[in-house]
Amino acid sequence: MIAKGDASAGKRCRVVILGGGFGGLAAAKQLGDPAFEVTVVDRQNHHLFQPLLYQVATCGLSASEISQPIRSILARQQNARVIMAEALGVDLAARTVRIESGELLYDRLIIALGSRTGYFGHPEWEAHAPGLKTAADALAIRNRVLQAFEDAEATEDPATLQRLLTVAIVGGGPTGVELAGAFAELTRTVLRRDFRNIDPRKARIVLIEAAPRILAHLSENLSGKALGQLQSLGVEVLTGTQVGEISPEGARLSTGELISASAIIWAAGVQASPLAKSLGIPLDRGGRVGVSPDLSLPGHPEVFVIGDMAAVVRPGRSDLVPGVAPAAAQMGAFVGRLLGEELRQRKAARPVFRYFDKGTMSTIGRSRAVAQLGSIEFGGTPAWLAWLLVHLVFLMGFRNKLAVFIQWVYSYFTYKRGARLIISRPGQIMGS
Amino acid sequence: MIAKGDASAGKRCRVVILGGGFGGLAAAKQLGDPAFEVTVVDRQNHHLFQPLLYQVATCGLSASEISQPIRSILARQQNARVIMAEALGVDLAARTVRIESGELLYDRLIIALGSRTGYFGHPEWEAHAPGLKTAADALAIRNRVLQAFEDAEATEDPATLQRLLTVAIVGGGPTGVELAGAFAELTRTVLRRDFRNIDPRKARIVLIEAAPRILAHLSENLSGKALGQLQSLGVEVLTGTQVGEISPEGARLSTGELISASAIIWAAGVQASPLAKSLGIPLDRGGRVGVSPDLSLPGHPEVFVIGDMAAVVRPGRSDLVPGVAPAAAQMGAFVGRLLGEELRQRKAARPVFRYFDKGTMSTIGRSRAVAQLGSIEFGGTPAWLAWLLVHLVFLMGFRNKLAVFIQWVYSYFTYKRGARLIISRPGQIMGS
Repeated sequence: MIAKGDASAGKRCRVVILGGGFGGLAAAKQLGDPAFEVTVVDRQNHHLFQPLLYQVATCGLSASEISQPIRSILARQQNARVIMAEALGVDLAARTVRIESGELLYDRLIIALGSRTGYFGHPEWEAHAPGLKTAADALAIRNRVLQAFEDAEATEDPATLQRLLTVAIVGGGPTGVELAGAFAELTRTVLRRDFRNIDPRKARIVLIEAAPRILAHLSENLSGKALGQLQSLGVEVLTGTQVGEISPEGARLSTGELISASAIIWAAGVQASPLAKSLGIPLDRGGRVGVSPDLSLPGHPEVFVIGDMAAVVRPGRSDLVPGVAPAAAQMGAFVGRLLGEELRQRKAARPVFRYFDKGTMSTIGRSRAVAQLGSIEFGGTPAWLAWLLVHLVFLMGFRNKLAVFIQWVYSYFTYKRGARLIISRPGQIMGS
Repeated sequence: MIAKGDASAGKRCRVVILGGGFGGLAAAKQLGDPAFEVTVVDRQNHHLFQPLLYQVATCGLSASEISQPIRSILARQQNARVIMAEALGVDLAARTVRIESGELLYDRLIIALGSRTGYFGHPEWEAHAPGLKTAADALAIRNRVLQAFEDAEATEDPATLQRLLTVAIVGGGPTGVELAGAFAELTRTVLRRDFRNIDPRKARIVLIEAAPRILAHLSENLSGKALGQLQSLGVEVLTGTQVGEISPEGARLSTGELISASAIIWAAGVQASPLAKSLGIPLDRGGRVGVSPDLSLPGHPEVFVIGDMAAVVRPGRSDLVPGVAPAAAQMGAFVGRLLGEELRQRKAARPVFRYFDKGTMSTIGRSRAVAQLGSIEFGGTPAWLAWLLVHLVFLMGFRNKLAVFIQWVYSYFTYKRGARLIISRPGQIMGS
């Protein structure tokens, strides 16, 4: 692991990939040439299908159904190894990555560590309003909401009941909208018969969005459709509303209202992985790295930054490449292919990355959705079926087993009851 | 919840059931008559299919696949309600059960709280050798073993490697045997290709049993078969060997050997729920209550103790009813039916409980097993298929959906990769 030496002719090209998410793994899979020695570093042992995390938080799926061990994904790629460790820093001059147990030397470095929940300069809010970026996040939210219903069943005090039966979601982007719709369905249908003292259908699901409309990146037409779908599920949508303060008492809104809830879920912002700060170049407001057109770090053609950590300009447009899974995967594949081509013909000019927007979809509950592909917009069942298909194909990209496919479909439709576990061992939890 | 009053003619008969396991739920299901008001109390929100817990510990299934919310199971039984609480004590004179938020009054009480891991008077061993009784237990074991393999991949010190690649199981009964076989299969097959520095097939799986043979409750023939099956999987079986001491260094055996392992799993003994002590009658060595032939508490015909908490004499035999799931279910159904009959014809003599032994099976890995039904013994594939069928039917008793059945079968056979998650959020785990 601690090794010195140059990548000279005859030696293998050592590619270190930080992060086993969509970007990192897409890159690894393009680097199968035995001339490469690929090392994937991730502090988790599994790859998480983040677009479906909201399902875990709302008892629709279990965490294991949207995860795969990174080792398993790369098991048959002989030139690839996996190290479960946290990347602590990069030394660009020495071309090493620092991890707890030592240093990794690289010839090429691909930084794909993703993003974490961002609180717009209020990190103290995290304690009261957790985000949804990891499986542990999702399970904690699920536990909290289910426990709140249990406590409500045993309570008679009206103020306490009100709080326990309220779930607040901050952020009307895709994550927030999907969470809100799924929570509404959970309380209106799945939990409906389970209690005798409380009526889960009376739970208050509130979605708070600062912009004038939810899903602001979509057209007004689609925003409106989504709004209607959420409201038909009984979600309370507060647009043009900001969160001014979050405390143990709840969230104080710009309208003056103090929302007290069993869970306040922050889906309003992300920040690029803090490792970006160690790269020594200015970052944008989201902590992202302004990369060159070939996704490399300015001044360092041997280092690439992809996925949510990269601020990628889109030629001819004013917006950047969005921080979504397909974009990360495209960037990873692009860099992997670029390195492969460079290996074979050293002096070629590097290509420019172009993001191919395959459309965007958001589901609202299990039968409603909105979708947009280029200028085509649609909602309702066709949108939802399209969403289902895309996600299943994407998932199956890693899990190419028909049996698993069938299992997953049934699981999704039958509201896996087991995904409603509250598992706890007070004082001694070692993980789940 | 805090209520006084007699169960006089015209009033409903309040049945409180402590425990939502096999015994408690079997009883509840027999008490559907609206003349009963059934309350099930459990400190977990889910019913766990314990016979398959070893699968969760060995990455074969996820916890959600062998669990169901108790509320969900009883959702359609209108006369039944569920309280998620810990039963703290029973006042036999006042006919109340104490829980944290108050008291529950009962006309009939069914105590079915099961058992916990027992350390034969060495409770201090629990910290170093956890048992396998809850989903949290299973996940903690899984996490520990998987993390040990990750650490081993990054280690070069031979002594550390030796420890990290050793799993020790204490107790050669069904649980220990099943754990050993499943761990051996996990390391020999599933994890085989995942690592580059270590060879998981070299992991040492040790099964320690004090008696001269494993599965001592079965015939010598079957014990021998099981031993052969375990050894063919590479498990090291040490019979006639006791554990003298367990410390942070490891387990000191009666042979003198000190076994240092990533995980020492205690499957050697159980103790009845400590609530039994509050009943004011002498208990046996396992903490169990010596019940009358109708499973009631001596001197208290309105109180029943069933499942692992009950020491039930078998007419004409010297052994007691075993602490297994089918026995608990039979006892629960027996008591439920008894109460129903009593409701209708008050003066009838109570029946005597008879345990119908439907046979016993243990699997060793995914294709080996031993089974015994009465005097019929068999091993190999027929035994394993029988095991599969019985467990699936048992599971489906609660989950009568074909879709879920298919899903479970596929899951079992495809070694759910997601069941290999290590999920952790240091310092802030709220459960899983």
